[in-house]
Amino acid sequence: MNETKSLAWLTKPIATLDKVNEEAARYRQTQLTKPPGSLGRLEEIAIRMAALQGTASPGIERVQIAIFVGDHGVAAENVSAFPQSVTSEMIKNFANGGAAINALADEINAPLDLINMGTAHDPGLFDEVTNHNIGPGTANFTIEPAMTAEQLNQSLAAGHDAIECAQFAGAQLFVGGEMGIANSTAASALAACLLSISPTYLTGPGTGLDAQGISHKIKVIQRAIDLHKTFIDSPLEALRRVGGFEIAALSGAYIRCAQVGMPAIVDGFVASVAALVAEQFRPGITDWLLFSHRSTEPGHKIVLDALKVKPLLDLGLRLGEGSGAATAVPILRLACALHNKMATFNEASISKTE
Amino acid sequence: MNETKSLAWLTKPIATLDKVNEEAARYRQTQLTKPPGSLGRLEEIAIRMAALQGTASPGIERVQIAIFVGDHGVAAENVSAFPQSVTSEMIKNFANGGAAINALADEINAPLDLINMGTAHDPGLFDEVTNHNIGPGTANFTIEPAMTAEQLNQSLAAGHDAIECAQFAGAQLFVGGEMGIANSTAASALAACLLSISPTYLTGPGTGLDAQGISHKIKVIQRAIDLHKTFIDSPLEALRRVGGFEIAALSGAYIRCAQVGMPAIVDGFVASVAALVAEQFRPGITDWLLFSHRSTEPGHKIVLDALKVKPLLDLGLRLGEGSGAATAVPILRLACALHNKMATFNEASISKTE
Repeated sequence: MNETKSLAWLTKPIATLDKVNEEAARYRQTQLTKPPGSLGRLEEIAIRMAALQGTASPGIERVQIAIFVGDHGVAAENVSAFPQSVTSEMIKNFANGGAAINALADEINAPLDLINMGTAHDPGLFDEVTNHNIGPGTANFTIEPAMTAEQLNQSLAAGHDAIECAQFAGAQLFVGGEMGIANSTAASALAACLLSISPTYLTGPGTGLDAQGISHKIKVIQRAIDLHKTFIDSPLEALRRVGGFEIAALSGAYIRCAQVGMPAIVDGFVASVAALVAEQFRPGITDWLLFSHRSTEPGHKIVLDALKVKPLLDLGLRLGEGSGAATAVPILRLACALHNKMATFNEASISKTE
Repeated sequence: MNETKSLAWLTKPIATLDKVNEEAARYRQTQLTKPPGSLGRLEEIAIRMAALQGTASPGIERVQIAIFVGDHGVAAENVSAFPQSVTSEMIKNFANGGAAINALADEINAPLDLINMGTAHDPGLFDEVTNHNIGPGTANFTIEPAMTAEQLNQSLAAGHDAIECAQFAGAQLFVGGEMGIANSTAASALAACLLSISPTYLTGPGTGLDAQGISHKIKVIQRAIDLHKTFIDSPLEALRRVGGFEIAALSGAYIRCAQVGMPAIVDGFVASVAALVAEQFRPGITDWLLFSHRSTEPGHKIVLDALKVKPLLDLGLRLGEGSGAATAVPILRLACALHNKMATFNEASISKTE
C-alpha cells in the first residue's frame, strides 16, 4: 500500500526545533552593529529561521510554491461574485503564466507547481499542471458532506506529495496557495466549526460580494453547520464535511512540513484555515509555519488570533493564490541577509552602549 | 555662482504628476485577472508609480541609496544610549560594508552612496565615502542654533547633489537614510517646533534610552524649544536652529526629488521629520514621496499622521540608515511586476463577475 494513499503518514511525529541554533542566532543579533532590537521583526525572523533550519546562518534562496485548485459544490448556492467556470479558466491562466502568482513567482525566482485537484468544468490538459483529479469539485455541503473519506485522504496526500517534491528540489521554504470559486465559503464554514464561532463573524465578501450577498452567504453556511455539526468529532471530520480539496491539500502540506522540518509561509484566510485544521489536528504544527499577511477578509483576524500568530504584512490583500505569502518572501530573505552579512561590534571596532 | 551653493534652487517649481498614466494604470488594474481591488496596496503602489514615473508600465529596477552621516552638538547633553564616537565608527563600518544598510543594499541590488556631513571624531578617509564636511558636528542647540545659515545651505545642497547623482545614474527611485548619534533628539525637537506639539509626545528611546533617559531627553528638548521658539518663523529656520546636517540633507534631497520628478521612499522617524520640513517648506512635495514603514519611535506616528500618509510596513524597526525604506523596495518591485506582467481578463478569456 502506497504510504501517501493511506492515512498512516498523518500520525508521524512533528520535527523538533533546533534550540541551540536558535540561541546562537539570538546571541548573534545582540552582537551585530545596531542598537539591540532595532531591527524588530527582521531579527525575530532570522532567529526563527535559525531554529527551523537548524543553522546559525539561515537562508531562503530556494523557495517552492505549490498552488492547489479545486471546485466547490456549494458554489451552486450562489455564494460567489464569480461564476464557477472561473476555476478552470484560472487553471489555464496559471498554466499560461498570466495570474498574480505567476508574476510573483517569477519576481522572487521561485518554481511554481500547479495542482488541479478537480474542477466542475474541464480546463484541458497543460504541461504546467499536475492532475490530481479527485472529482468534479466537492459535493454541495449544504446537502451532504463535501468529500468522501477517500477524497479527503487523497486531498491530504496531495499536500504530502507537494512537500516531498519541495524537499527533493532542495527548497528551504514552502509557499502554499489555493484557488477555487466559493472556497472562502468553505473556509468560513470550516473555521466556524473548528472555533465554535458564529459564521456571522467569520464570513466576508470573498472575491467581491456586497452586503446582501454576504448576508446570503452567512445563511448558506449556517445551514451547512446545522446539517453537519452533530457529526463533527475531529478537525479532519470538519474538513471532510465542509472543507474542500485544495484546503485539505494545504492542511496536508502543513502537516507534512512539520513532520519533515520544512518551514512554510502561510498565505491569507483560506490557507490560514487550512493551518488551523493542521494545528487542531496536531498541536505544535504552527511552530513550522510563518504567517505572511492579514487579509481584509474579516474572518482572517479571528483565525490568526486563534492560532496566536501575528502576520508580517497588512497590505489589504484578499486574492489567495499564495500571493500574500510570496509577497512576504523578500522580507524573509532580507532578514536572513542582515543576520548573516552584518558585522559584529567586535569585527567593526564599534563602541557599545555607555 | 554655483547653483547648489546658493539657495536659489530651493524655490524652483515642483514637478506635476502624470494624471493620464495614473488613470491608464488604474484602469489596467481593473482588467487584470483578479477580483477588483484584491491586491490592495500593491495596486495603489503601481498606480502611484505610474503617476510618478509618467508611464503606464512603472518599474523600479534601478534604486539609488544615499546615507548622510553627521554629528550633533546636543549629544553633549547625554541624550543617547551610545557615545558620540559611534558616528565616526559607523562611517568606517558603512565603508567596510558591515552595517545593516550595506546588507540590504546588496540584497536589493542598489548602489549605496555614503556622505560624511561632518563628525566630531575623524573617521579617516575611505574611497567609499564622499566628504561633504560642514563642521565637526552641529552646535549644541540647547545653547545656540545647531547650524549657521551657510551650514544649512550646504547641508540642503548635499541632498540636492545626491539627487543629481541619482538622476545621472538613471535611478527610478531614491532611498535616503541617515545616521548620527543624538539625531532622534534633533528630529523630536524639530517635529515639536514644526507641529507645535509638546516634545513629551514626540520623544522616544532612540537607540535605547530607558524611561529616565527619555524623561531627561524631553527636558533637554524643551530647553532648546524655549531658547529658539520666538525666532522660528519658517520650516527652514526651525531646521537650522534644532535640526542637523544629515536631516537637512534629506530635506534638500526630498525637495529636489519633487522638483525633478524623482520618486523617493522615506525611511523612519528622522527621515520623516526631514520630509515634514520639506512639505511645510513647499506643500505638495509629499506627492513625490512614498512612506516605507512605521517605526516604534512614538513620534513617528504623529509625524506620519501630520503628513497624512500611511506607511507600507510595520515591522518594529527603529534603526534608521534607510533600512526600513530599503526593506520596502522589494514590495514596490512586486507591485510593478504584478501590474506589468499579469494577463487581463480578455487576454486570458476569463469570465468576469456575474
